[in-house]
Amino acid sequence: MAKQDDQFKKVVSHAKEYGYIFQSSEIYDGLSAVYDYAQNGVELKKNIRDYWWKAMVQMHENIVGIDAAILMHPTTWKASGHVDAFNDPLIDNKDSKKRYRADVLVEDYCAKIESKIEKEVKKAAKRFGDAFNKEEFLSTNGRVLGYQEKINSILSRLGKSLENEDLADVKALIEELEIADPMTGSKNWTEVKQFNLMFGTKLGASADTAMDLYLRPETAQGIFVNFLNVQKTGRMKIPFGIAQTGKAFRNEIVARQFIFRQREFEQMEMQFFVKPGTQQEWYEQWKENRMKWHLSLGMGEDNYRFHDHEKLAHYADAAADIEFKFPFGFKELEGIHSRTDFDLSQHEEFSGKKLQYFDHESKESYVPYVVETSIGLDRMFLAVFSNSLINETLEDGSERVVLRLPAVLAPTKAAVLPLIKRDGLPEIARKIVDDLKFDFNVIYDEKDAVGRRYRRQDAAGTPFCITVDHDTLEDNMVTIRHRDTMEQQRVKIEDVRGIINKEVDMRAWLMRM
Amino acid sequence: MAKQDDQFKKVVSHAKEYGYIFQSSEIYDGLSAVYDYAQNGVELKKNIRDYWWKAMVQMHENIVGIDAAILMHPTTWKASGHVDAFNDPLIDNKDSKKRYRADVLVEDYCAKIESKIEKEVKKAAKRFGDAFNKEEFLSTNGRVLGYQEKINSILSRLGKSLENEDLADVKALIEELEIADPMTGSKNWTEVKQFNLMFGTKLGASADTAMDLYLRPETAQGIFVNFLNVQKTGRMKIPFGIAQTGKAFRNEIVARQFIFRQREFEQMEMQFFVKPGTQQEWYEQWKENRMKWHLSLGMGEDNYRFHDHEKLAHYADAAADIEFKFPFGFKELEGIHSRTDFDLSQHEEFSGKKLQYFDHESKESYVPYVVETSIGLDRMFLAVFSNSLINETLEDGSERVVLRLPAVLAPTKAAVLPLIKRDGLPEIARKIVDDLKFDFNVIYDEKDAVGRRYRRQDAAGTPFCITVDHDTLEDNMVTIRHRDTMEQQRVKIEDVRGIINKEVDMRAWLMRM
Repeated sequence: MAKQDDQFKKVVSHAKEYGYIFQSSEIYDGLSAVYDYAQNGVELKKNIRDYWWKAMVQMHENIVGIDAAILMHPTTWKASGHVDAFNDPLIDNKDSKKRYRADVLVEDYCAKIESKIEKEVKKAAKRFGDAFNKEEFLSTNGRVLGYQEKINSILSRLGKSLENEDLADVKALIEELEIADPMTGSKNWTEVKQFNLMFGTKLGASADTAMDLYLRPETAQGIFVNFLNVQKTGRMKIPFGIAQTGKAFRNEIVARQFIFRQREFEQMEMQFFVKPGTQQEWYEQWKENRMKWHLSLGMGEDNYRFHDHEKLAHYADAAADIEFKFPFGFKELEGIHSRTDFDLSQHEEFSGKKLQYFDHESKESYVPYVVETSIGLDRMFLAVFSNSLINETLEDGSERVVLRLPAVLAPTKAAVLPLIKRDGLPEIARKIVDDLKFDFNVIYDEKDAVGRRYRRQDAAGTPFCITVDHDTLEDNMVTIRHRDTMEQQRVKIEDVRGIINKEVDMRAWLMRM
Repeated sequence: MAKQDDQFKKVVSHAKEYGYIFQSSEIYDGLSAVYDYAQNGVELKKNIRDYWWKAMVQMHENIVGIDAAILMHPTTWKASGHVDAFNDPLIDNKDSKKRYRADVLVEDYCAKIESKIEKEVKKAAKRFGDAFNKEEFLSTNGRVLGYQEKINSILSRLGKSLENEDLADVKALIEELEIADPMTGSKNWTEVKQFNLMFGTKLGASADTAMDLYLRPETAQGIFVNFLNVQKTGRMKIPFGIAQTGKAFRNEIVARQFIFRQREFEQMEMQFFVKPGTQQEWYEQWKENRMKWHLSLGMGEDNYRFHDHEKLAHYADAAADIEFKFPFGFKELEGIHSRTDFDLSQHEEFSGKKLQYFDHESKESYVPYVVETSIGLDRMFLAVFSNSLINETLEDGSERVVLRLPAVLAPTKAAVLPLIKRDGLPEIARKIVDDLKFDFNVIYDEKDAVGRRYRRQDAAGTPFCITVDHDTLEDNMVTIRHRDTMEQQRVKIEDVRGIINKEVDMRAWLMRM
């Protein structure tokens, strides 16, 4: 745990120091759970978005994109179920007037028991030294087993109460466990109530014409309400997909873990419309296809796993997560859901409009079934960034911090460095910059010794450095230094573009899928 | 006027029919002044955004991007002046309970007088036939001169009242002109009041911890609050720029003209930080640079003009618009503003943090001055789309509708068409699609006669069609048909990629700047 926390703290501070992520409105002491993407972050985010878009839209003849507005007609959210059921269970402390998520209070209580288990493990490890077997200890030590049983029983009861919407029992559980307000220690709690997570706003100025709107809590509904317009004007034949990237907003009470759970975030979603009865087959195919996309980035097969849902949302007949190994453990990165005809049928009912597809082959009309792939762009950013940040010990014993971003996603592809600031080297370096900048992001850096500049680019994630030295004046050749291997290669100036393009061009990476 | 309206209606209906723009939440009868970008629209919008980003960020060594959140700390908007002064003057009708923009009521009144002038012109033109001289008529006809004088006097008084915040006089003007509620005819008006245009929302759940937030009404402030973080972590030296694209929201009471004025819209802004005293020079340079960007798209020099502001906003010491000839006349497309140190100084005052730059050459600290370039992405979309939509009469007298989008911006670069659906032609066509799709958006179309398919692609804006016919089986050659000239060219299959890439590759277009 401590090591994980440590690594996570490094991720957060590196993200700020190297211009990837800043706290939103930092000069005003920040806005909780909202972040801004800085000069390198915006490029990494853009490259991830483009890589997803190209793989999902450009490469598929039967998938098109849309870009629906964040503001939608409010009936959309009645139909989707968000107005009635997109809630968190909240509890107020009567003394401190602080508000908490009731389920999180209980989970935090369990986390404390969990940390007692870890203490026992540490003690035993110290006592037994090399002979210590953690697995065996966990499954045999009486005290540990007791703790574990308590955790299991609490979480199981919490889960059942929430599922049955038995909020009185969630309150009872908090009282039985004698959970106190973490800020003040008071145990004087209100009832548990459901709180809707959508941000509200009002359209229009006058009291009687004003319309209550919501900031969309997901992008998917923008696809469903446009389904028939896209199908007809795009002359799409089932099966076909509609893809979209865009912002969504959730008024989370407890938002933690940096950009993993934000109040404002970006989704990359694709809804695939299929003939009823074929959804299982497409669900399996999209699970496979999406995993291939992840693996194409070369971030390590062991960092991914599927988690098939046993309990399904009311709209789903199958669902799985692709989980990624974040610094705080395996967590959901992407979801693949077989959503049946739930959404389109709801919109038919609430809009009074037919949302059916006429199948020219079978001569029948039907409401299509939907298989969805939904990934959080910010989570994907965190996955790429945290997985890439490495602290290496080199052969000479020195330390190197390197951000091994997949080259296709790196914000800057190459830094051009004159060895020294005179003798005409800067002029040649700038000429190379001016030549390469049409192809990709490239920067010029002449400050500090070249070794220090290499390290700076390593930490910033730049895959290539191009060094101009005095020999360049004679032989028209430069040194290309590779970030990951630190290998240096002497090449002709006119070959630089081709060598780098080969490694960073999105086409080449997409072909690996 | 009538002809303009006609052309504008064609633009709106073509945008829907060919999958560029749909009304938001259309199945729920729409959300006023909010639009969704459809399958072709999303690609055109994305291409415009990318073309701007590459030209502004990738091509400039001293400009970097950011992507700040839509939600910001609310003090941001106190500092920027939006909480106190971002208002429209509104008036309610007491009988109908309808609310209007007071200034728009007056302007609509003047527009009615304007239409009387037009009627006089038409009458006279009919009477005098070929001998009619419009300019002369307008400057000599007594009745017309009277109308014009009345319009001038009304608008001049309105302008002064608004400038002096004399809302009582705006009300008096409405009463003197006997302006009635356009819906009901009632003249029973309330006072005129200022109404803030920002959309509000609340962060957090509990009453006493909830924070009043705004959806940002402009993206610029996200750059200003991050100025120092970007400068320091990016090691930027003045002069340098920070660019950003993103959504902004304004609760417009009267939002009209399709996507020209929406409640949710996207901006592309760059704030250029300069040494105080040098702002005029940079202002001129950015005016020139931005015009070059527009002209590089080849949409006709005559469609653009500068409009230098005589009256300046309180924060500006110089300002100009780049106006474009929309179907409804020349209107603002982009603004270039010399914003002085107003914003950074305000944020210094409200945050209590120094937002100064230390100049290593002159060894002094100062708050930089700012020159801004700000363009509406949706407006740019409308400019490109409406300017490209042409109704041609061909030599044989037939009509052709063609969407002559600049090839670099076109959603789909090429359609691959097998002449007929058999004899192995579809297989070759699909192979070409699979080969080209790594480079750019390409579609396959086999439905209908090839001539009809050409026309469909013309109207959709696809610059190239690639036709596979029976000769292809023998000679491995295909026909490339050019959208604008309708010229056909017989080329080897392996040359197709290069020929098209040359025309659509962003690099080539950027080099024209």
